[in-house]
Amino acid sequence: MTKNAVTLLPEWTNAGMDAGRMGLGENHLKHLIRLPDRLKKFSRRGAGIFYDFSRQRLDDECFRSLINLAQARGIRQRFRDMMAGEIVNTTENRAALHTATRSFSDDPVMTAGPGNTGGTARTDIMPEIRRIRAEIRNFSADVHNGNIRTAAGKQFTDAVVIGIGGSYLGTEFAATALACWADKGIRLHFLSNVDIDNFGAIVRTVPADTTLWIVISKSYTTAETLANLNQVRGFLAENGLEEKNHVVTVTSKGSPGDDPANPVLRSFHMFDFIGGRYSVTSAVGGVPLALYLGYDQFERFLKGAEEMDNHAATAPDAENLPLIAALVSIWNNNFLGYPAQGLIPYASALSKLPAHIQQLSMESNGKSVTLDGSALAVSSGSIIFGEPGTNAQHSFFQLAHQGRPFPIEFIGVATPCYDTYTRTSKGVTNHQELWANLMAQAQALAEGKTDDNPAKCFTGNRPSSTLILQDLSPENIGRLLAFYEAKTVFEAFIWGINPFDQYGVELGKTMAGDIRNEIAEKNKNPGYQFDNRDPIRKCYLDILFDKKP
Amino acid sequence: MTKNAVTLLPEWTNAGMDAGRMGLGENHLKHLIRLPDRLKKFSRRGAGIFYDFSRQRLDDECFRSLINLAQARGIRQRFRDMMAGEIVNTTENRAALHTATRSFSDDPVMTAGPGNTGGTARTDIMPEIRRIRAEIRNFSADVHNGNIRTAAGKQFTDAVVIGIGGSYLGTEFAATALACWADKGIRLHFLSNVDIDNFGAIVRTVPADTTLWIVISKSYTTAETLANLNQVRGFLAENGLEEKNHVVTVTSKGSPGDDPANPVLRSFHMFDFIGGRYSVTSAVGGVPLALYLGYDQFERFLKGAEEMDNHAATAPDAENLPLIAALVSIWNNNFLGYPAQGLIPYASALSKLPAHIQQLSMESNGKSVTLDGSALAVSSGSIIFGEPGTNAQHSFFQLAHQGRPFPIEFIGVATPCYDTYTRTSKGVTNHQELWANLMAQAQALAEGKTDDNPAKCFTGNRPSSTLILQDLSPENIGRLLAFYEAKTVFEAFIWGINPFDQYGVELGKTMAGDIRNEIAEKNKNPGYQFDNRDPIRKCYLDILFDKKP
Repeated sequence: MTKNAVTLLPEWTNAGMDAGRMGLGENHLKHLIRLPDRLKKFSRRGAGIFYDFSRQRLDDECFRSLINLAQARGIRQRFRDMMAGEIVNTTENRAALHTATRSFSDDPVMTAGPGNTGGTARTDIMPEIRRIRAEIRNFSADVHNGNIRTAAGKQFTDAVVIGIGGSYLGTEFAATALACWADKGIRLHFLSNVDIDNFGAIVRTVPADTTLWIVISKSYTTAETLANLNQVRGFLAENGLEEKNHVVTVTSKGSPGDDPANPVLRSFHMFDFIGGRYSVTSAVGGVPLALYLGYDQFERFLKGAEEMDNHAATAPDAENLPLIAALVSIWNNNFLGYPAQGLIPYASALSKLPAHIQQLSMESNGKSVTLDGSALAVSSGSIIFGEPGTNAQHSFFQLAHQGRPFPIEFIGVATPCYDTYTRTSKGVTNHQELWANLMAQAQALAEGKTDDNPAKCFTGNRPSSTLILQDLSPENIGRLLAFYEAKTVFEAFIWGINPFDQYGVELGKTMAGDIRNEIAEKNKNPGYQFDNRDPIRKCYLDILFDKKP
Repeated sequence: MTKNAVTLLPEWTNAGMDAGRMGLGENHLKHLIRLPDRLKKFSRRGAGIFYDFSRQRLDDECFRSLINLAQARGIRQRFRDMMAGEIVNTTENRAALHTATRSFSDDPVMTAGPGNTGGTARTDIMPEIRRIRAEIRNFSADVHNGNIRTAAGKQFTDAVVIGIGGSYLGTEFAATALACWADKGIRLHFLSNVDIDNFGAIVRTVPADTTLWIVISKSYTTAETLANLNQVRGFLAENGLEEKNHVVTVTSKGSPGDDPANPVLRSFHMFDFIGGRYSVTSAVGGVPLALYLGYDQFERFLKGAEEMDNHAATAPDAENLPLIAALVSIWNNNFLGYPAQGLIPYASALSKLPAHIQQLSMESNGKSVTLDGSALAVSSGSIIFGEPGTNAQHSFFQLAHQGRPFPIEFIGVATPCYDTYTRTSKGVTNHQELWANLMAQAQALAEGKTDDNPAKCFTGNRPSSTLILQDLSPENIGRLLAFYEAKTVFEAFIWGINPFDQYGVELGKTMAGDIRNEIAEKNKNPGYQFDNRDPIRKCYLDILFDKKP
């Protein structure tokens, strides 16, 4: 452990003592939520969102200890440093400037960036970001109004995003959340997995002659994306179509996807100072979302994210929604010992949020090493999972109520998209029924219930937060996205880890490369015998080639 | 605790001592997997599936202790009792006969069933099950060949399943897994969530005049399902269509959905001795799957499940795939202390498997009380979550490799559906690339890697199992489904809990009912003031009615 370890801070020790007190029966949530001013004290409004943590297992002193911890770590200053272009991704010697992609301020954002790290010279990245935004606006408008057409003169009807992980999940989340705004005549699809059945299902769905393929890869070397692109090349060739008319790339300047020798319809740039899982508001999300929703809706989405960024950077710690949410998360994780967290949006449109936040949080904070290379003294990163409510109630909430406890973050939306369907059942609309369930679950988890029949007892004292959006507007989806991004980096800043690298994915890639080479060898030379010094590996390779387990 | 507690068994104590030994450095997985015969000893083939648990943290003695535990609990006999119609769902005084729905044996299955529980009289349920299967076969054939048409004489093109939880997830899993077999000209959709946006999105998608609505609810009182049906009634009326031509029900005999006074196109029966989460092979899955895939494919699916049931009932404990998988799960959960489990299918077609198994496992085994009503001495139920590989690698696997460890169950498929796309990248096909990654992940998690840079170190010793299917045939999907069902009940039999009830969902329903009543009151009487004795409840009700947070 290092002298910078968060666990050595007196503020950490204090929080630990508070946590011990919360185990007492008198601090059961069923009592806490009945205290006067409970909701007033433990809820906040900011950047258009209402955040209620009154049903978390904490009291005034716990909250004060946590805020003290945040202040001792100076996490809001670090957030501002991040927004200002400091090299916060130290292991990769990079800034982390996803916030710049949604800045509409006239202020410059100066960063050194790689290739420039030897000196102190810094350049303003905003002109480049504005240029790319304008390119996205013009390109999407040209596709929509028919200025850009296929070689045969047809308008495009479908767009397929070819990308994986950070080049996929965030865009899928935003596109699903905003689907009721999609009125541009473009259907959006995602080809992410290298599984050939993913490709097979897509090409069975889209019309070859009016489909745009949007290839998203920073390095343009991602194995899955390149393998899928390779299949698409075959598909285009079979249909007498050309890459230069049907492929768009989002990639780093000068990558193999941005090479004039291999012409494509259009190439948009992404930057190495924006990590994949934080890239939805860059061209990564911008190109597909502007095609699907129109650029204006995409810009509204950016502006919502910008508003939350500014809230995260400037609202005082005790009024700062994502900062408080990060503290609550660490409280549950390290002080109360919950290893997992449920994320349950009471909105079908947010069905892809859990998968995106699962990636954002677990890839950012699933680390064991602090910034100075020493071992982290506590567990970082929670297992995040979830499904929309009320569906989740009919699925795994049995365990949430009577099995192993885990904290839950509920999300509610005050007004649905389709509020014209007002037929009532049992005196309430569907939306009101949904809302009644959202309210009831948090209450039931907190209060519990005694019963003579042990199978019908509920221990209660199960914590949750609730986050409320006004509606599913592009601004609100942007705010929600930026809320979770800020929450994630605030957590990392408290732990003292780097939320922007992902070395943990490298070992599997290396090993897959070794295995790929052996498979390629066998493809070339069918007489090749797999090495039987590793019988497990040999067994699986034999299954692959014999096509039977 | 009771004298029947599993933790009082000497076999449990022995396993606990084995677990202590597994913490020694010499038992790190990187050593274990290099032992001669490791794979041979710790893998099994049965009912068409290859199950490899060689990368679980156990050795010969651990395995022997676990098998002894299974034998001490007599779990295979309990499984046979279950299949024979014993009242294994004791809290609800019911049998659990999902296995009967896929029995093609001529043998009777005698059960008392409710309403008959006073005496010993039992009846054979197989004639009724065969009758319903024949109804499904005839009905789906009639829809496909046009004998059953709309009132205007058109053939049906779309079917929407209205159901939630157990009436939804299993069917969605099977339909997604078998989508490449769907050649009957019927598109299948799911309307589950009470969220009006779920309904709004569906009605924007389907053609009113050629859509069948399949309403699935055992009691026909499920709030979400009835609220959605109510919206559908409005939609049909607006389009001049009638329930008797467009609605099919799957419900209990004599329920409000099976009432001649309210005619529907066809009503299929389900039984109270089949729990929702185990009901995919009954009419619940049968009606939509036969419409989507054709009855013949559905019957192949049933036969695969039957084969696995018979394997689970008859294969000796140490050769019994789902039984061993249940032991491994309990080993990881209670002896090695992992609270969660990842389920990662390397097959896009299995993308809905994690959500179905999440429900199956967490709703069945998320319990705190044993069969005799005493408190369970250990945690039962794991948190189950997952996404398809390789997608998951690019999402949350950072945490799997370098953060909080959790065991993983990988699933591979030897032959994909779309194996005609044989273009290669880096010398391998997409399917081979997928396979290389499946192999590499399990190896990397087990072995780990040291490095001078602490951020690039991998501790390894992270356990996984791998399950291999030959292909995505209906039989194999049936086998896979029945594997997880059997695994789930075997776990419950070891813990001594009832995997067939779900009292944990009741409290939230009751509270939602109270809140619904208050909302309905306000709808009737806009002057109604919400009670401010509970400021949290009042706050949320005000948000709902003011439409702003």
